[in-house]
Amino acid sequence: MNRRRARKRNPAPADLVKPAAGQLFNPYDPIAALAPEALDLLHDGSMRILEEIGLEILNEKALALYEQDGARVDWDAQTVYLDRNRVMQRIETVPAEFTLHAPNSARNRLIGRNAINFTTVASAPNSSDLEGGRRTGNLADYCNFLRLAQDFDVIDFFSGYPVEPIDIPPATRHLDATLAAYTLTDRAFSLYCLGGGRVIDGIRMTAIARGVDMETLKSEPSINSVVNTNSPLRVDGPMLDGLIEMAEWGQPVIVTPFTLSGAMCPITIAGALAQQNAEALGVIALSQIVSPGAPMVYGGFTSNADMRTGAPAFGTPEYTRAAWASGQLARRYQIPFRSSGTNASNCVDAQAAWESQMSLWGAVMGHAQIIKHAAGWLEGGLCASFEKFIIDVDMLQMMRETLTPLQVDESTLALDAIREAGHGGHFFGTAHTLANYTTAFYEPLVSDWSNFETWSENGGLTAFERANRIYRERLARYQPPDMDASVRQSLEHYVAERRRELELAR
Amino acid sequence: MNRRRARKRNPAPADLVKPAAGQLFNPYDPIAALAPEALDLLHDGSMRILEEIGLEILNEKALALYEQDGARVDWDAQTVYLDRNRVMQRIETVPAEFTLHAPNSARNRLIGRNAINFTTVASAPNSSDLEGGRRTGNLADYCNFLRLAQDFDVIDFFSGYPVEPIDIPPATRHLDATLAAYTLTDRAFSLYCLGGGRVIDGIRMTAIARGVDMETLKSEPSINSVVNTNSPLRVDGPMLDGLIEMAEWGQPVIVTPFTLSGAMCPITIAGALAQQNAEALGVIALSQIVSPGAPMVYGGFTSNADMRTGAPAFGTPEYTRAAWASGQLARRYQIPFRSSGTNASNCVDAQAAWESQMSLWGAVMGHAQIIKHAAGWLEGGLCASFEKFIIDVDMLQMMRETLTPLQVDESTLALDAIREAGHGGHFFGTAHTLANYTTAFYEPLVSDWSNFETWSENGGLTAFERANRIYRERLARYQPPDMDASVRQSLEHYVAERRRELELAR
Repeated sequence: MNRRRARKRNPAPADLVKPAAGQLFNPYDPIAALAPEALDLLHDGSMRILEEIGLEILNEKALALYEQDGARVDWDAQTVYLDRNRVMQRIETVPAEFTLHAPNSARNRLIGRNAINFTTVASAPNSSDLEGGRRTGNLADYCNFLRLAQDFDVIDFFSGYPVEPIDIPPATRHLDATLAAYTLTDRAFSLYCLGGGRVIDGIRMTAIARGVDMETLKSEPSINSVVNTNSPLRVDGPMLDGLIEMAEWGQPVIVTPFTLSGAMCPITIAGALAQQNAEALGVIALSQIVSPGAPMVYGGFTSNADMRTGAPAFGTPEYTRAAWASGQLARRYQIPFRSSGTNASNCVDAQAAWESQMSLWGAVMGHAQIIKHAAGWLEGGLCASFEKFIIDVDMLQMMRETLTPLQVDESTLALDAIREAGHGGHFFGTAHTLANYTTAFYEPLVSDWSNFETWSENGGLTAFERANRIYRERLARYQPPDMDASVRQSLEHYVAERRRELELAR
Repeated sequence: MNRRRARKRNPAPADLVKPAAGQLFNPYDPIAALAPEALDLLHDGSMRILEEIGLEILNEKALALYEQDGARVDWDAQTVYLDRNRVMQRIETVPAEFTLHAPNSARNRLIGRNAINFTTVASAPNSSDLEGGRRTGNLADYCNFLRLAQDFDVIDFFSGYPVEPIDIPPATRHLDATLAAYTLTDRAFSLYCLGGGRVIDGIRMTAIARGVDMETLKSEPSINSVVNTNSPLRVDGPMLDGLIEMAEWGQPVIVTPFTLSGAMCPITIAGALAQQNAEALGVIALSQIVSPGAPMVYGGFTSNADMRTGAPAFGTPEYTRAAWASGQLARRYQIPFRSSGTNASNCVDAQAAWESQMSLWGAVMGHAQIIKHAAGWLEGGLCASFEKFIIDVDMLQMMRETLTPLQVDESTLALDAIREAGHGGHFFGTAHTLANYTTAFYEPLVSDWSNFETWSENGGLTAFERANRIYRERLARYQPPDMDASVRQSLEHYVAERRRELELAR
């Protein structure tokens, strides 16, 4: 505990994590939607919420932990009131950064500093593609999303099942889902933060997949999870069981209030953010009471409701500024920040793209270290689309390239090429062009830059239709990651044993 | 001249332009794609281009002006070599900011500081909509784009004809186009920077539309134009005639090299930017030789070519970073900056939206004070789309809202509403929600946030199809701006007289 606290308060350069080669960083300063005084007022407002209104905690163990730590608990109302000094003291032990370890160590990822990590759409109940249309989530589609993710370097890890495999039994679904993830991909995976043995199953399978023992795992974050609060100011019991277990095992939880402005929180973004901040910090504080130094992530998901229907909107101006402001809050507390790539469109059209772009710029310039739902999300998260996945990957790869500052030196200034081309000439044949043309520019997956005539002759396909072709080609050529036969055997053995136990227990 | 120079070098707060109420400002710091040393190297590279390689100037009057100013001219090669000290001295007199005056003074716009101005697609040779498909530009569509622009406050002025009215005779087209603009809209307009009387016709009609005399106009920029260089390093003769005339009349020209990396300039973005900078500053320097203090704008349009076909790409990672870097260069020289909203898609699909977003974020975070082609541009500028116009307006309005920093105070923190909703409650009926729900959030034009079932029942329309409906509704309810009958009469009289002269001269 003391070591971790010391690291956060006074990070010695030598103690900093050395990121893997594939780690993306954001070299640009974040955008601040809040002036410094506004940030102070927001912090103060959220502390007043915790002190005066409190959190309803539907979990006796959690209430007892808060109480033991000195907080005032109203047991009848299952409500805890948290003093701001205590909250600040507790969250001080959250590591400002940590490495999320993957089965393939080349996929280890830094969660902190100006690192950026993209994860796929998560927990969608439906999936869709052009030919098959929209259908209930199923194992075949689940596995195909895992395969697609494995095929693109820009996907860093998973923070949820891309689509819910609803066709397999819920009691043992987590076993099959985790087995599929660790055989079809080499990325870090995630688990549902719920009681009933799911957390420990996920952690044990992760240790097997990584080939390390449980003690090692305890000091090496390797699997992640999400806790959503039941906004406003209520936290679900089973999720808190999961949070406590994850914290005890030193595994990161992304604490994400779903503060939909106008519905589950005030209709002003400031009020929504104050409530988000109160809920996130209140729950993160609990994790540190359980296990000081346990890695945690501040999740920001504030958006606005359509006030005519109550439907959630995403990628709106309110959403983008809330992401920037959430980043400011997370940085104030030195806790890694998670945002999302989202949209509310019902098809893979222009709306899906502009709302996704708005949310992506919110997340990237808010310095989110985890950008969840960044590939495949459609319909406000109710559908995982294969074509949208490909389009999102293209957008993420473009963003990665955009985050590379321009190189200026004698070679890139290319004055010799300008001399060679001459006034009014062209550069297609200059030595400099010929030496660089294969790697000079980002090569898009989906964008079609041909002229109207050529495009029409080729069938006049929209980006949606072109993305369909690409996803099918990519799946056809998918290669599973290298995997030790004994590791696979151990995972399969674990799943078989646990399936037997869980089926007997029913 | 001295007054203007003094203003630029030492702007006194009282001397600053007071912007109109509708002026949009960007409160966020720009994104810098270039480190300070890289910016220095780029500047140095561009100066070496002007000194060592020079600009080919296909205009004897311009060459003579450069020579009189002390530059070395190779008359056989029609090439001028510009010394860096002289270039820096000349561009010092370019105003760091100016007001572009409109017929309706509420539409006056600041070009400078952190102001943002959006202008429509310009000079597209084709137009399109869902029902009519793609057709050659024509006067009816031209007028309809003007009407649409007039209907949306977010369109600040024009920097070119939205679509080229090819069905009217070229010799007198500028008269009809300008008359249409000044009767259908109350925004500032633009003219083609070409010889043959077009410039003076545009300026005279602008004076009539504004109801001021020509002397007043000389000190009040009121009509804008664009000079594109014939990259690499060649400048067209008639355009320079136009530039000289515009400068003499104190009207702003946006000097925009079309530096398409790999085709008309080096395949590296650094090389492209060095060439862009040399061309822009070389031409802007000429404007100041003609008329020190004439308002000018630094245009950045660097993008990359598709190296398989030579086709221009837009809204790419290269484009976005080039926009940020161009903004850094323009700010270094204290010259207002113009960028663009662009894409290369052939239909109004997801690609059209994500490339437009990438270019918009490039322009906005590059602190472009003029964002040209921001509504309606399709096919790399070869087509003006009515549906894309509506979608772009939605995106611009979203951007405008996103550029409003969040307000945090007791009212927006809304702790009373949080108390009222209670733990696990909802906010739809709180007093705070009821007091604010009509104005709390940005109301989109095109985004559909309904759920999949409702959306399907309503026909499952894409954003493209919904935008079609909106553009037709907006045109149907279009109202022309208030206009003095005598002004209209004077404009019509001018056009009739000039048409007679020009037809006689043929």
